[in-house]
Amino acid sequence: MPEIRKDPVFGRWVIVASERGLRPNEFKTASDDCNGVYKCPFCHGNEHLTPPAVYSLPVAGGKSWRLRVVRNKYPALVPGGNGCGQSDGIYNRMDGIGCHEVLIENSRHGLRLEEMDIEAIADVVRTFSLRTREIKKDPGVKYVMIFKNHGMNAGASLAHPHSQIIALPMVPIMVEEEITGAGHYFKEKGACVFCDILKEETGFKKRVVAENGNFMAIEPYASRFSFETWLLPKKHLSHFEDMPESQVSDLSSILKNTLCKLHATLPDLSYNLIVHTMPVQAPEAAHYHWHIEIMPKLSHVAGFEWGTGFYINTVPPEDAAAMLNDGKKYKL
Amino acid sequence: MPEIRKDPVFGRWVIVASERGLRPNEFKTASDDCNGVYKCPFCHGNEHLTPPAVYSLPVAGGKSWRLRVVRNKYPALVPGGNGCGQSDGIYNRMDGIGCHEVLIENSRHGLRLEEMDIEAIADVVRTFSLRTREIKKDPGVKYVMIFKNHGMNAGASLAHPHSQIIALPMVPIMVEEEITGAGHYFKEKGACVFCDILKEETGFKKRVVAENGNFMAIEPYASRFSFETWLLPKKHLSHFEDMPESQVSDLSSILKNTLCKLHATLPDLSYNLIVHTMPVQAPEAAHYHWHIEIMPKLSHVAGFEWGTGFYINTVPPEDAAAMLNDGKKYKL
Repeated sequence: MPEIRKDPVFGRWVIVASERGLRPNEFKTASDDCNGVYKCPFCHGNEHLTPPAVYSLPVAGGKSWRLRVVRNKYPALVPGGNGCGQSDGIYNRMDGIGCHEVLIENSRHGLRLEEMDIEAIADVVRTFSLRTREIKKDPGVKYVMIFKNHGMNAGASLAHPHSQIIALPMVPIMVEEEITGAGHYFKEKGACVFCDILKEETGFKKRVVAENGNFMAIEPYASRFSFETWLLPKKHLSHFEDMPESQVSDLSSILKNTLCKLHATLPDLSYNLIVHTMPVQAPEAAHYHWHIEIMPKLSHVAGFEWGTGFYINTVPPEDAAAMLNDGKKYKL
Repeated sequence: MPEIRKDPVFGRWVIVASERGLRPNEFKTASDDCNGVYKCPFCHGNEHLTPPAVYSLPVAGGKSWRLRVVRNKYPALVPGGNGCGQSDGIYNRMDGIGCHEVLIENSRHGLRLEEMDIEAIADVVRTFSLRTREIKKDPGVKYVMIFKNHGMNAGASLAHPHSQIIALPMVPIMVEEEITGAGHYFKEKGACVFCDILKEETGFKKRVVAENGNFMAIEPYASRFSFETWLLPKKHLSHFEDMPESQVSDLSSILKNTLCKLHATLPDLSYNLIVHTMPVQAPEAAHYHWHIEIMPKLSHVAGFEWGTGFYINTVPPEDAAAMLNDGKKYKL
């Protein structure tokens, strides 16, 4: 069973999961034959190579599937265990309980998320929300992290389009810091910082990348990474999984539009996409606003960033937005 | 001039330095000809390609140099400016003042830090300390960050062995969090957490990688990265630049020994090395203990880590120490 260890200085948790080191790292591109010598575990016909599906959507009228959710074969966290912490010399650790699911976005190896039609992207979005609502029924689950690694430079170990859902037995430190930071802003200004960002960016215009009735995509003012992009719902809501069905289509559409712009501007784009949301057991909050952060990985994060938490970004967000909006290709 | 922008949620600072995007990224290996078509700016004979040296050490009896410190040609921060913050809509920014120096560790392109003799490594260590003491005379400098990126995967843009020194006009958020965390431990236990770690690791033995009279090298209990290694002075001291001359030789020796073990165990190692120390204008502190953290970059940091601050490590530190100590090569 994986183990969660606590750093005695930062209070930062680390998952020590040695079984995960055994996972395959076979990064096959779209042109590879996935049912020949190499069998992609996420491709149609190779379903026996993954654990059984916990959820799936069938192709209309057919026996096949168009979306599958399976347990991760090499999980960072697993169900069970007693959930109690224990001391280990001067240190502390606990069993690595939780769950780790993989959402296979479609059955075609080479079809990227933004190349799918909006209805199929909407199914992915709805499944994120549905799985979160299911997983949070376990009161031991404190946080559900939804994310996607696209491309080798972003840490993806398989090329077939997929996302991940990890349920954690505690609220991660960075989530806590983000919520605390937003809480300070609320106390001082009497408003949600993300609602204020939406107002500011609507007025300033130069950092806006896409917009529709329910969502706005911006390059944030203090972007840590070149071409960092945030997708924000215009209406305040703290929990992603409480998003009304009436907003799903607009989210799918802005996701498609934004990822298409990023891919068109930056060839060979690798990125991490992360859903930022409130801890699942917490009530709706006026000071926190769920959103999605997309972080392109164009350069390696180096010693300065690791040592300080201070980032150096060589593309100002106003320039990044202009480059995303002008339809040209750039080589960074 | 670079600009420092503040994230309104986290209070996290980002340096927006578009000029730095222009820097060359010519990663030439040891076998390349550095005085032919490609001219390595850090090699002997190409001194005119860097800004003038702010410090250098001559080869004994000769006119040449064996170590040089120059201003970074593509700095993240520059001297001057008024140091005042200003508002920018709902956001805040300030001029990117500070300084950014490069320490060229030796004149030979292919000679890695740990391949130098201990006396030459000691010169590097002494120069870190000397430059810090010089730079901190400016009361506007709040933190001096000393670090080294080795290898392309660790973000190095030039292969010639070098380190970097960045002076900052504020204390970075991660440094503050580390010192605050250590302060909480001190309040609760009445002892320095790093002194307690040294005691614990001396007793446990299985995470120790190297040791001499004044220093110990360990794989920390909650290692974020596989083969993460810390070098700790045995005697409590909060400021690196106050290290007595009597400890310099032991630090050089354990640095050589540890880096040799890492390179021997992990072929093509890339790593970040970071000196963790107190803010330069703060007095000596009983709760904080300077040390060096070495973070090998064996895999890409992915979405989960970026979204949570939670790390997944597939090599338990006890196993990493055993692998570093058994003298064999491993391919991860």
